[in-house]
Amino acid sequence: MAGEGFALHHKLADDTLLLASSELSELRLMNDAHYPWLLLVPRRAGVREIYELSPADQQGLLHESSAIGEALMMAFSGQKLNVAALGNMVPQLHLHHVVRFEGDAAWPGPVWGVVPAEPYSESALASMKERLVPVVSAYQSALLD
Amino acid sequence: MAGEGFALHHKLADDTLLLASSELSELRLMNDAHYPWLLLVPRRAGVREIYELSPADQQGLLHESSAIGEALMMAFSGQKLNVAALGNMVPQLHLHHVVRFEGDAAWPGPVWGVVPAEPYSESALASMKERLVPVVSAYQSALLD
Repeated sequence: MAGEGFALHHKLADDTLLLASSELSELRLMNDAHYPWLLLVPRRAGVREIYELSPADQQGLLHESSAIGEALMMAFSGQKLNVAALGNMVPQLHLHHVVRFEGDAAWPGPVWGVVPAEPYSESALASMKERLVPVVSAYQSALLD
Repeated sequence: MAGEGFALHHKLADDTLLLASSELSELRLMNDAHYPWLLLVPRRAGVREIYELSPADQQGLLHESSAIGEALMMAFSGQKLNVAALGNMVPQLHLHHVVRFEGDAAWPGPVWGVVPAEPYSESALASMKERLVPVVSAYQSALLD
């Protein structure tokens, strides 16, 4: 059943970059250099809400989310992690993970819709991917625990 | 260990009303008539992030969250549920559940910091609590499943 009928919403395809995938989800980087910002997108067709996932998928998503959340905060020495499933504009279920710092572009408010995204330059993206290596590794290990 | 050393953050105490509690959490109503808006606050001292909870508490929180999320959306025929752990201003871990409708006070943006909260009148609160009966019931059943 993995990913059967699943197609990534075009807005998520436009705004994010694929880092890795599991049986359950895609791990994607928001193309916005303002914040370390990852998305988990369950590869399940037609799912809008966390509670619509099967209990096993809900647990798997939580497991992946906690693994990347903790690894993100360690990798970036973040002050606070923001985790959210909103989806008012893109109803396809996707879980935001944003590392926040006092004084960042939206602090202390939420990040959505505050300042226009600043796409990564080629070199900034390479550097970001380097810093995300332990996060991707944590993600890839999460479902094996 | 339940709730040992736990004390509700004064801002959450000021802004929300207790609906029910479990071994794991408090279920609280945001005192803002703009949106059906519930908080789950784990009764665990010093916890700021979901990943800091024990694995069992994380699963319990997910279980409670999904139960009230689904019940909220049914009770209010919501268009989209927003679920979020932000905590930039109140670091004590608390999980928002906000039922959203096209045309609500912040649609399609997030609700935080957009319009000042509109406290419930006594009659509006009574009516809200009546509509929340099945949600509280779902919450109270969640950890027994």
